[in-house]
Amino acid sequence: MELKINRYAAKIKPSMIREMKVMADRYENVIDFTLGEPHISHHTYEVIQEGLHERMLHSSLGYSHQYGVLELRKAIAAYCKKNYNQVYDPASEIIVTTGVSEPISAVFKTILEEGDEVIIFSPSFTLYNSNVLMYGGKVVLYDMIENGMKVREETLRKLITPKTKAILVNSPCNPTGKVFSREENDIIYRCIKDHPIFVISDEIYREIVFDQVKCCSLSEYPLLRNRLFVLNGFSKSFAMTGWRIGYVLGPKEYIQTVAIVHQNFVASASTISQYAALEALKHEDLTVNIHQNYEKNRNYVYQQLKPYFNHVVLPEGAFYLYLDVSNYGLTSYDFAMELLKDKQVAVVPSIAFEPKDSGYIRLSYCCDFNVLQEGVLRIQNFRKSL
Amino acid sequence: MELKINRYAAKIKPSMIREMKVMADRYENVIDFTLGEPHISHHTYEVIQEGLHERMLHSSLGYSHQYGVLELRKAIAAYCKKNYNQVYDPASEIIVTTGVSEPISAVFKTILEEGDEVIIFSPSFTLYNSNVLMYGGKVVLYDMIENGMKVREETLRKLITPKTKAILVNSPCNPTGKVFSREENDIIYRCIKDHPIFVISDEIYREIVFDQVKCCSLSEYPLLRNRLFVLNGFSKSFAMTGWRIGYVLGPKEYIQTVAIVHQNFVASASTISQYAALEALKHEDLTVNIHQNYEKNRNYVYQQLKPYFNHVVLPEGAFYLYLDVSNYGLTSYDFAMELLKDKQVAVVPSIAFEPKDSGYIRLSYCCDFNVLQEGVLRIQNFRKSL
Repeated sequence: MELKINRYAAKIKPSMIREMKVMADRYENVIDFTLGEPHISHHTYEVIQEGLHERMLHSSLGYSHQYGVLELRKAIAAYCKKNYNQVYDPASEIIVTTGVSEPISAVFKTILEEGDEVIIFSPSFTLYNSNVLMYGGKVVLYDMIENGMKVREETLRKLITPKTKAILVNSPCNPTGKVFSREENDIIYRCIKDHPIFVISDEIYREIVFDQVKCCSLSEYPLLRNRLFVLNGFSKSFAMTGWRIGYVLGPKEYIQTVAIVHQNFVASASTISQYAALEALKHEDLTVNIHQNYEKNRNYVYQQLKPYFNHVVLPEGAFYLYLDVSNYGLTSYDFAMELLKDKQVAVVPSIAFEPKDSGYIRLSYCCDFNVLQEGVLRIQNFRKSL
Repeated sequence: MELKINRYAAKIKPSMIREMKVMADRYENVIDFTLGEPHISHHTYEVIQEGLHERMLHSSLGYSHQYGVLELRKAIAAYCKKNYNQVYDPASEIIVTTGVSEPISAVFKTILEEGDEVIIFSPSFTLYNSNVLMYGGKVVLYDMIENGMKVREETLRKLITPKTKAILVNSPCNPTGKVFSREENDIIYRCIKDHPIFVISDEIYREIVFDQVKCCSLSEYPLLRNRLFVLNGFSKSFAMTGWRIGYVLGPKEYIQTVAIVHQNFVASASTISQYAALEALKHEDLTVNIHQNYEKNRNYVYQQLKPYFNHVVLPEGAFYLYLDVSNYGLTSYDFAMELLKDKQVAVVPSIAFEPKDSGYIRLSYCCDFNVLQEGVLRIQNFRKSL
């Protein structure tokens, strides 16, 4: 007697990022560059703990509204308007979610029909691909590395078909640190504006951009507003990963369905975590110069490792370094495993971020500077030994 | 230019429970019998706050493992073994989730193919039906009310077809308080054992059973173990609804796919909420006599309202009263709205729990006794006025 499970669920694989983290934890004195987990989370808690303690004593910690605690939605609306000129109604156009993972899944569940295509700029965050596949969709990759890390109009146009349901932009990008320029956003806009294509803009790294560049967004094109979802959250800019609070902004017409999907997924986000996010928003200063912490690390890791590898992508934002390890006769996975075994440095191989293996590894450099120094030294020594 | 969304997502409706709660909140002096939200949540926080405060200062509040904090999984394994003789490996057979809503969705996503049928005992919790529909499945209802609140073998056998993928049992049941007897579980077992049918046992109200009855479970049938998912959590027995921590137990073979779906949904559950649940498990005494609180309320509300209505289901567990309001010329929704407008008592109409409207309302009586008294008085007066 055979019990069959869903054929799409049967095909998806666990996140390689988490798998590498689990492997890293088996080693002593490991330098862990796997997760995108800012090292300053305890500082966040110091700032929010007083307010949070009061909340726990005096507020209901029962179920929140399925869209989230209204006070938090209002604070998010104000924050997005002030900082990004994104104007959304807290009553009907903002849903507070369990991290940014949840709206990725909820938006894809809402819009995708089996066989629909989603254009994704590759390499990309693990859960985009797997969520599209989980709902029976098809991932259509724009290969950034083959295109010199640039969006080219002729390349992009060729990917659009009558089956294209959505395009997803993650800028700054995990895992490359790529920031989409205004010209590149213009190209995307021109390519899709006359087609019935949804736009998903994952802006979770938006606060972390280097070289005094200002991050722009597809939310700046008024004609896209009625088909655009903006995803953002507290994990990266406020260093609150484990609290699992994100949000999705979008037009009321579609947000109401995303909200029902969200209700079916989780009912509502953790109320204590929502109050923590509300406290964090009272301390916007936490994020004002956050990019400076990472820019120092970025400069160091890029300058130190560039001479040792064939191609290192210069990160314009986020806190990841993506570098080519393909010319040592090892797959990216084997390179990562050898590095871990030999030097106890944990990184994520590119197969986590691409269906094919282009032979890169990702380093997450949102750690303390002295940890970064030690890890870089070990990687240099490992590279010399090859 | 038309943007089409997923045809199943387009059809699902928001939970009527939450909608009635939102309406209730518009009235002053309202007696709110809508949500299944225990009134003792602040007491829980008093008990766990010291341990939790320490955790926040000294533990990582970063992402947890996608299966959940291992220490919590071990504590859940010990709790389920000790109290329910459910033996599951914390490393591979337990996932900590965002409430019990999330594993409902994750399990259905894992097992359901479009067109698959799920047998559900009706009336039932809102999110079972909507999740099955969201994934393109078909809900096949066993009508408990037409069957005198009993599981009958000949009725159940007729519902099983080659398309039946799963059967879901929620005992004690929301919204009726029905507890499935051992004989009824035996019937279910006999009916399904020779068919490739998954079993989902939602045991979230398991601690709350009256009249000294011991709640039994489909987990007691060894031959079902390799196709059974047990759902449970902290919302009801530990009065921790808003913390959103539940769990799913199941065979490793399928749990590994549920875990990937869960990772795609939310990455992992809120870490602070997981630590709160861990603290709660150190205070099992919180739940030992929890049924007594509700039994007093159950006895009162049943005895007081039975004389006023045609049919009132005697709750054997959980904390809901389901009563027939069909013979006053109003739909269940209109009855609930009139009761709210006229007497400021908020209840949930049966259309929340059944595709058709059998003309019942659900009262959640997990409130303070004096609140219950006042609400019952108002309902009696409303009934007399009809």
